[in-house]
Amino acid sequence: MKTMTIGQTADDRVVRRDSAAFDAAKRWQELGHERARARLFDRPARESAEVYRNNIENYIGTIAVPVGIAGPLRINGTDDVRDYRLPLATTEAALVASYNRGANVITRAGGCNVRVVGEGVSRTPMFALVDVAEAVRFADWIDAASATMQALVPTVTKHGRLQSVTCVQEGNHVYVDFRFTTGDAAGQNMVTFVTDAICQRILAESPVKPRYWFLEANLSGDKKASAQTLAGVRGRRVIADVVLPRPLVTGVLHTTPERMVEYWYAGALGGVMSGTTGVQGHFANGLAALYLACGQDVACVAESATGITRMELTDEGALYVSVTLPNVIVGTVGGGTGLPSARACLDLLGLAGKGNAAALAEVCAGAVLAGEISIIGAFCSGDFARAHHSLSRGATFQRSQNSE
Amino acid sequence: MKTMTIGQTADDRVVRRDSAAFDAAKRWQELGHERARARLFDRPARESAEVYRNNIENYIGTIAVPVGIAGPLRINGTDDVRDYRLPLATTEAALVASYNRGANVITRAGGCNVRVVGEGVSRTPMFALVDVAEAVRFADWIDAASATMQALVPTVTKHGRLQSVTCVQEGNHVYVDFRFTTGDAAGQNMVTFVTDAICQRILAESPVKPRYWFLEANLSGDKKASAQTLAGVRGRRVIADVVLPRPLVTGVLHTTPERMVEYWYAGALGGVMSGTTGVQGHFANGLAALYLACGQDVACVAESATGITRMELTDEGALYVSVTLPNVIVGTVGGGTGLPSARACLDLLGLAGKGNAAALAEVCAGAVLAGEISIIGAFCSGDFARAHHSLSRGATFQRSQNSE
Amino acid sequence: MKTMTIGQTADDRVVRRDSAAFDAAKRWQELGHERARARLFDRPARESAEVYRNNIENYIGTIAVPVGIAGPLRINGTDDVRDYRLPLATTEAALVASYNRGANVITRAGGCNVRVVGEGVSRTPMFALVDVAEAVRFADWIDAASATMQALVPTVTKHGRLQSVTCVQEGNHVYVDFRFTTGDAAGQNMVTFVTDAICQRILAESPVKPRYWFLEANLSGDKKASAQTLAGVRGRRVIADVVLPRPLVTGVLHTTPERMVEYWYAGALGGVMSGTTGVQGHFANGLAALYLACGQDVACVAESATGITRMELTDEGALYVSVTLPNVIVGTVGGGTGLPSARACLDLLGLAGKGNAAALAEVCAGAVLAGEISIIGAFCSGDFARAHHSLSRGATFQRSQNSE
Amino acid sequence: MKTMTIGQTADDRVVRRDSAAFDAAKRWQELGHERARARLFDRPARESAEVYRNNIENYIGTIAVPVGIAGPLRINGTDDVRDYRLPLATTEAALVASYNRGANVITRAGGCNVRVVGEGVSRTPMFALVDVAEAVRFADWIDAASATMQALVPTVTKHGRLQSVTCVQEGNHVYVDFRFTTGDAAGQNMVTFVTDAICQRILAESPVKPRYWFLEANLSGDKKASAQTLAGVRGRRVIADVVLPRPLVTGVLHTTPERMVEYWYAGALGGVMSGTTGVQGHFANGLAALYLACGQDVACVAESATGITRMELTDEGALYVSVTLPNVIVGTVGGGTGLPSARACLDLLGLAGKGNAAALAEVCAGAVLAGEISIIGAFCSGDFARAHHSLSRGATFQRSQNSE
Repeated sequence: MKTMTIGQTADDRVVRRDSAAFDAAKRWQELGHERARARLFDRPARESAEVYRNNIENYIGTIAVPVGIAGPLRINGTDDVRDYRLPLATTEAALVASYNRGANVITRAGGCNVRVVGEGVSRTPMFALVDVAEAVRFADWIDAASATMQALVPTVTKHGRLQSVTCVQEGNHVYVDFRFTTGDAAGQNMVTFVTDAICQRILAESPVKPRYWFLEANLSGDKKASAQTLAGVRGRRVIADVVLPRPLVTGVLHTTPERMVEYWYAGALGGVMSGTTGVQGHFANGLAALYLACGQDVACVAESATGITRMELTDEGALYVSVTLPNVIVGTVGGGTGLPSARACLDLLGLAGKGNAAALAEVCAGAVLAGEISIIGAFCSGDFARAHHSLSRGATFQRSQNSE
Repeated sequence: MKTMTIGQTADDRVVRRDSAAFDAAKRWQELGHERARARLFDRPARESAEVYRNNIENYIGTIAVPVGIAGPLRINGTDDVRDYRLPLATTEAALVASYNRGANVITRAGGCNVRVVGEGVSRTPMFALVDVAEAVRFADWIDAASATMQALVPTVTKHGRLQSVTCVQEGNHVYVDFRFTTGDAAGQNMVTFVTDAICQRILAESPVKPRYWFLEANLSGDKKASAQTLAGVRGRRVIADVVLPRPLVTGVLHTTPERMVEYWYAGALGGVMSGTTGVQGHFANGLAALYLACGQDVACVAESATGITRMELTDEGALYVSVTLPNVIVGTVGGGTGLPSARACLDLLGLAGKGNAAALAEVCAGAVLAGEISIIGAFCSGDFARAHHSLSRGATFQRSQNSE
Repeated sequence: MKTMTIGQTADDRVVRRDSAAFDAAKRWQELGHERARARLFDRPARESAEVYRNNIENYIGTIAVPVGIAGPLRINGTDDVRDYRLPLATTEAALVASYNRGANVITRAGGCNVRVVGEGVSRTPMFALVDVAEAVRFADWIDAASATMQALVPTVTKHGRLQSVTCVQEGNHVYVDFRFTTGDAAGQNMVTFVTDAICQRILAESPVKPRYWFLEANLSGDKKASAQTLAGVRGRRVIADVVLPRPLVTGVLHTTPERMVEYWYAGALGGVMSGTTGVQGHFANGLAALYLACGQDVACVAESATGITRMELTDEGALYVSVTLPNVIVGTVGGGTGLPSARACLDLLGLAGKGNAAALAEVCAGAVLAGEISIIGAFCSGDFARAHHSLSRGATFQRSQNSE
Repeated sequence: MKTMTIGQTADDRVVRRDSAAFDAAKRWQELGHERARARLFDRPARESAEVYRNNIENYIGTIAVPVGIAGPLRINGTDDVRDYRLPLATTEAALVASYNRGANVITRAGGCNVRVVGEGVSRTPMFALVDVAEAVRFADWIDAASATMQALVPTVTKHGRLQSVTCVQEGNHVYVDFRFTTGDAAGQNMVTFVTDAICQRILAESPVKPRYWFLEANLSGDKKASAQTLAGVRGRRVIADVVLPRPLVTGVLHTTPERMVEYWYAGALGGVMSGTTGVQGHFANGLAALYLACGQDVACVAESATGITRMELTDEGALYVSVTLPNVIVGTVGGGTGLPSARACLDLLGLAGKGNAAALAEVCAGAVLAGEISIIGAFCSGDFARAHHSLSRGATFQRSQNSE
């Protein structure tokens, strides 16, 4: 077994010549920056270089992101009632504390109801025809050929199922929305490969020939907040709600259900006036921290952090809170989920591997519900500025006068 | 110096009783999950526990995310021409390879022009009045009192500057948009603290008393994609463009400028029909990877991944490409930027510390431009599915027939 | 035959005591304003009072709106090729002249291709349940009960057909999208009555009882621009395109295909940055004028004036132009279409009465295409300001230097 | 004085050879359609042909639209308290009845508060530069040259005032937002002419020469619903609110404040999920009917029918309702306002001519408020379907069981 030393100093820099670590070491020779190298390309980063082979190119090491734990968060889900401890990876002070507080309030209220009410991931190629009339003929052929497409799917993927094929015409362009379920994978690559195969078949068999085509032309909403998803779904549409008895709101959140509802109005219409996709306090923080910890694609926060929070006063003076997330795109197999950190965090949740993607989506919704309750509570009690001030400076947090 | 051992086994588990590591160890005793503990709470995570004290609560360790290097990317920026090597943290196969390709094409074309054309971060409290008429009186008072507010700012922050104060009335609600520049910090906390101080003064001095108020009511667009930003700014508005000579497009991207423009039409209108905020191929991937590597708040991808890509054919048959990012919210001081990983990645860029935030924003725009060129090139040449297939399976990537 | 005189003067004020005109005359007695009365409640307005009985309440007379004629506009439609003369009701100077010019260019290019590619009008009631879990049960029951609903439809309407029933859940709220085809009627009332009947049945039979419900809760997009329609349909989705040979562009529009494409980029991205629904030059003018002339509901301009214009340079240097209107909501029976003015205008088009709604929708798209070509041509040649200046002042219009 | 007869029959067809009526008669000779001619080109249409000369081209006659009267509507406006009778032109059954009911409820509650809180109409040319860097230089020059532009304005218009000049850069394109107040005119033409003059000066004087430019490039939001307006203004931003005591809600609207608030939630979030611009029940109907009656540009409904309705329960159990209309674009001089019908309707309102545009905008907001209260009341009481059914069939309307 041949080895070699890169750099001048430490024994722990010995790596195999044909290894990913060797390649990384060579890159560092070119980059210089000895101190950065020491930090990013430390021993664990060298030792795990092979592990990341299929998840990164031009590897130069790893970064570390701190993880905090929030909860327990009780979820009354589709299958059972479970208490989750949430691993949240972030460097934003007060984030974990806030989600922890929200989770505790929910759990003390008996847990939140969570359901996945829809599922589907699209790939949307576009075919360019000569004119509007020809495009109609092409779309008609596609509509008629869906059985053929259906038959093709199992030859490409074990886990993907074709749900629907929908043509959307714009001028002489025909977009085709191929929608799949993707099992326990987030599924973006899966739908790419299957759709590519279907398109090759279309091009071979369609009597109407497109002038040109593209495998994806942005109608799918991939990694972009899109209005179309709000009443539909991309990934999983997940909904969570809870009723918080008045004493929990006053005792733990230091405000009242009425004030929380007043905030909701203000925040919802503030969002509407700024032109956001959906109305909400803040889905991005919790989703980013959970996605990052659990090996999900954190770029998907761009699409997942859309949806609707609703707060209403019940007849009994309690606070009803719901969150609707139309676009939770998570998996428990594939992508980054098998990498060491992600696997550890999924283990903590009890959701590693097959059969767990829907439950992970439920956890995302429950976490977002916790975050909404806590942050809106903080705005109502006047704690928001003070909590951020204290926690980001390491001081003890003192709640002061509320916002009234 | 008192120490104690948590758990049964290893000497490397010795931590001080009053330390952050000790607290984390106690959490693990409760959590169980020995294997997860071994991964998340390894020696470096224990040793660096104190480091993260002001960035995380309920610390239980760290996750590792692999980093790849892309570039060099030549940027003809406001101040100088510089070649950057981009550290990108991701677990998505093909991402680094794609940005690397885009960066190389840009650099071979002489680099991209990048400019920051606007700057400002808002905090937007809402004040509830009795009725429309009273709300007008309150807003008028605010308009008249801006000098007082201006005077208050330097007493709270050294780096923040109040740019403007704008009242937006909805019914009997008055939202006030306090807009600041925040120096080299991303600035969300800074604007929170200053606005809180200003609001306390408003409440004390305004002759028209609000019934209630909230420090932030969602008009700012904080961590949400918002339409209002497209023609405005949140953080920094950064614009990059480049002209790619035809031979670069055909030789490196294996397609033509005409086909790239055709894709642009398809993708732009696909985005429009799906109701996205702006039109683009894909800003989220590169921004998420760069933000994560450089200690930026990755939840901000929800807002930053909006904007506009434009591709046009020049009279000479070359390809003009521009990206407009109205909402790059980055800093080189504060937040997570001082943590070890982030500091290392910023060092690699040569952009750690004061005086570098605008340049970091330029790098973001340049990277996004590289990503757009490469991914749209891949859709045009037919490489997209194949590249993802190969790289996510560790195989050698073979470009095959293009999409024509 | 009993009559009476209202007011002191003219013989033409004799109206029957039990007539609509009598009621109107009484209203004028209360209103006063003799001059306004003379204008609005002139002889034709008195004589036609009965005619409007089912289209207006508290009738006080009629207003007159001038109509201009544009065309011929050649449409290569689904069924045949036809030349239309378009009646346009407006008081905006230059509008008819501009559409006339666009229509002539299209006709000289051989006419435009137009197709209706989708059809459907929704009514979307909302049912409030106790919690998320109960809402899922309710929605599941709805999904299972669609056959029963289907059976109910013919008992309420002869012309409406139920296309689909789709549940959209938000928190503990279930919106149900009942989508119908409505024959030759615009159909908003038809879908209201049928949906009401279906909902009564749901309330009677569902084992899960809603706490409360509303017959329409805004998911339908009724009379509001909505992003969801862009890739879908409300009313009819109609698409028109044409290729304009270069000599027509230079000779008639006094500009070049290249400049038109450059305008398209500018206008499309201007629209995107302002947050419009779709991208276009200007659908509202032509639709409003045509709707108004033809007895359509002009308030529907709020929803219909959305969609997409696309302009591309062809390989031969000609100009490809298409318009996609997802939301043309017109009828040739019912509503105001039977009233005298509307009937006359529909007669002019040859589209009065049954069997003509789809063709009328095609005319709308063709007219909008004409408008886009003409207005964008005017912006490109520099004629826009001058045409408006001249025509609104009665002067002869002189084209001057273009915008280059 | 030479005259001639067109057609075979009636003396009333005698028109002057050089008259607008003569031209119209000639058009009818070509069109044929005797019955349509009789209806559209009746004696008043012939006699008033000259009147419309500057408002229409290719004149062929007039259409009649029935007008109903609603109110009185009490408005506590900026200047005084006034009771208005609203002329509403429509052919939609139940519309006038519904607005009438809403107006009466408001008036019985003491009237609504209405304020204009902002004003401005933009024209937004676009200048194309070579690259991003050159575009920055051009924009900087524009920023510095605003005094020169300011000086130019009075030479072109007596009534327009330049409020602000704002550059918005996208790639190498610079959009310039010229914002004006336009006195008592709606002002679209006024801002066109002034902006044209300013642009000519820019082109002559700017040291940085654009490659090409367009006088308007869609950033203004002209006749399109745009998200940017929601927190801003186009035309006038007008706000109205009222508190409805519980007995009025139960007695007149046959529902409760609580149910109205529940509807508001349902409708607001239904709107959000469908991707509307703002959240509201239905602004389009009332605005279209009022615009049409009063000679406003009814195509502007496309932009004006956006905004926000809010309903909240007060501590006393009454119903707070507000409407915010950011985009009321009306005038009392110019455009169609001087034409006979419009003048009559403006006279009825007491708002014809100079000094009345702001008050007319207030009436628009008050009318919309009335409409929202009535239609939402109808959805809550279960009256909606029945009212439309009865009134569109001429039957007596019977309220039946409510929606509970």
